Amino acid sequence: MYIEKIRKVKPLIHHITNYVTVNDCANASIAIGASPIMADFIQEQEEFSKICNCLVLNTGTINERVANSMYESAKFYGNLNKAIVLDPVALGVSMARDAINLKLLNSYKISIIKANASEIASVIGLDGKAKGTDNTFVVNDHFLDKACEYAKGHNRILVVSGEVDFIISSEKIAKIYNGSIMATKITGAGCMCASMCGVFAGVIEDKFQASLQAMLSFDIACEMAEEISNGSGSFRVNLIDALSNLNDEDVKKRAKYEII
Amino acid sequence: MYIEKIRKVKPLIHHITNYVTVNDCANASIAIGASPIMADFIQEQEEFSKICNCLVLNTGTINERVANSMYESAKFYGNLNKAIVLDPVALGVSMARDAINLKLLNSYKISIIKANASEIASVIGLDGKAKGTDNTFVVNDHFLDKACEYAKGHNRILVVSGEVDFIISSEKIAKIYNGSIMATKITGAGCMCASMCGVFAGVIEDKFQASLQAMLSFDIACEMAEEISNGSGSFRVNLIDALSNLNDEDVKKRAKYEII
Amino acid sequence: MYIEKIRKVKPLIHHITNYVTVNDCANASIAIGASPIMADFIQEQEEFSKICNCLVLNTGTINERVANSMYESAKFYGNLNKAIVLDPVALGVSMARDAINLKLLNSYKISIIKANASEIASVIGLDGKAKGTDNTFVVNDHFLDKACEYAKGHNRILVVSGEVDFIISSEKIAKIYNGSIMATKITGAGCMCASMCGVFAGVIEDKFQASLQAMLSFDIACEMAEEISNGSGSFRVNLIDALSNLNDEDVKKRAKYEII
Repeated sequence: MYIEKIRKVKPLIHHITNYVTVNDCANASIAIGASPIMADFIQEQEEFSKICNCLVLNTGTINERVANSMYESAKFYGNLNKAIVLDPVALGVSMARDAINLKLLNSYKISIIKANASEIASVIGLDGKAKGTDNTFVVNDHFLDKACEYAKGHNRILVVSGEVDFIISSEKIAKIYNGSIMATKITGAGCMCASMCGVFAGVIEDKFQASLQAMLSFDIACEMAEEISNGSGSFRVNLIDALSNLNDEDVKKRAKYEII
Repeated sequence: MYIEKIRKVKPLIHHITNYVTVNDCANASIAIGASPIMADFIQEQEEFSKICNCLVLNTGTINERVANSMYESAKFYGNLNKAIVLDPVALGVSMARDAINLKLLNSYKISIIKANASEIASVIGLDGKAKGTDNTFVVNDHFLDKACEYAKGHNRILVVSGEVDFIISSEKIAKIYNGSIMATKITGAGCMCASMCGVFAGVIEDKFQASLQAMLSFDIACEMAEEISNGSGSFRVNLIDALSNLNDEDVKKRAKYEII
Repeated sequence: MYIEKIRKVKPLIHHITNYVTVNDCANASIAIGASPIMADFIQEQEEFSKICNCLVLNTGTINERVANSMYESAKFYGNLNKAIVLDPVALGVSMARDAINLKLLNSYKISIIKANASEIASVIGLDGKAKGTDNTFVVNDHFLDKACEYAKGHNRILVVSGEVDFIISSEKIAKIYNGSIMATKITGAGCMCASMCGVFAGVIEDKFQASLQAMLSFDIACEMAEEISNGSGSFRVNLIDALSNLNDEDVKKRAKYEII
């Protein structure tokens, strides 16, 4: 009933995101039933915070102007207690990027952090050793302990995307076994995951559940797309098709996850 | 003979547009036979105005820097009496956005305004009640009267995109019944309409006719794309295919519109 | 063995590029086996120069802020003797654009210039007569003489994309007969060529060979894509598919070129 609810409510999902995959984020959001708004002009953040259901921040092609818009926006969404998703792309790779992400994490009410294991490692105080935007970090028990601790201390959900996805709250961890290796062969899969988290968080109060359903839906759409794709170009197209045709029944049938 | 003329002249269509759908606008423009130029650097607006046939402005992801480039560009195109198309995306949603669009509308020679009914309502002085970038406004007789009045007072063509499209001049109104619901399932359909208006206005003197042919062509390409699409991802791809294969014969055969 | 090497090394290709085709450049880079990083924030150029294998600069939607990031980045890559590819989009069309490209060419260690004949003509001191981003220049013997002279004087490789592609060094010229007319029907083909040059230059020391292999690979992928496409929309998708499936055997079998 989650996707059904999204298509009924049609939540407005405000993105301040990178210019590389912004079109994918917009089309994926529409495909699953939401209405995306991409707006990074600092002067209109307050007004958008009033009409939108959720804010998605992605630091992929961050710069000073856009960072300031993110701070402004996060302030207003936080004040209104509306969900904020942060995708701290390439965290750990440059000092300027780290400073912006740290400010977002330390000064604003980020509800969900969606990132790969390297980036989450940086967030929770492990050495991420990121290689650009690629992930080189393995999730182990120590990682999960630290992540749960962080989730508890900051009242945040951590979403670690990878071959297995982890949804981590202060109390529980979901491991998702759905997904497709093809998602690593296009740019934007991670960004679209963050958008999906935003979309589901826009209509589901429980942010752990929202993140879990978002990732399941995205991963299952990836599986469906992979089955009929001839390469990464058609995979990208078929993924949007799959999201636009996806329903709650599909997700329920194909979901492979456990709560630990 | 309109599309044939475009493919012969290959008009240069200068866009200052949003970074969400800019690639769609470029590919749609090329597909129909034009040569798009995306350039928002304030220092080169004068030179581009001299070589391009038309200017398309879209305020989707507007900010202060880009707004200033739009003013500069609109000034030069206006002085040269070259067509300017404005797509005032999300007009009515924020004060900063409204101020920029109002300045464009009040101070420069905008020839064609392409927008949804909510946005056009804001332009002509009705209460648009926009929900983000989505349209919530119904076109009725009062709307059309006010729109004609505005068109007359400002010597502008109004293009209202929706389930039925309206092309409104001071003297006549065209109602277009072509189109596909799928166009509302992707980002960029409205933006591509504005690009099409720019392309056709780049080679057709009569701006009412240019807008009518632009919308007919786009709507019919949407219909063709819908027939062979499995979702919104493939629709987006098939739409560009359809535009690239479209000819005047197709448009003539499939056009469903009336002049009232 | 070139593509095999790329897929093994997975070079990090840093782009500062336009927002029109940046997604195509990213997906094409991944498809051939590299890891693209799009980052134009001036404060992180030094750090990215240390971890990336190559820098690709594209002035398509240049502005002052991004130009300054390009200078900063080119300085660091030059100091590290890492390859820099420049795609001087629309060179010759505006003074501001020319000034930025000239500064890049005159003050930094650009290794490879990838451009159409009009743009290369501007670089080597012939009158380019560009019409926007389109090419109107014919490559003749005089052009090639001047280009070789320039290549020698500046220790640079010139890559002229067109119906026939030319790879020009101080000592030799390769003429490539592969390719597809469809590449002129989408935006981004030229930009993706520059990305390919960057990817191959990221793993091949000899920049002439790198450029030759990059263009052969791209052109052959275009041919493969054309064979199964119904228009420019599907061509764009099939091109990424073809790049993602391409291997050294394909390139060796289908390559049509001569060294003169």
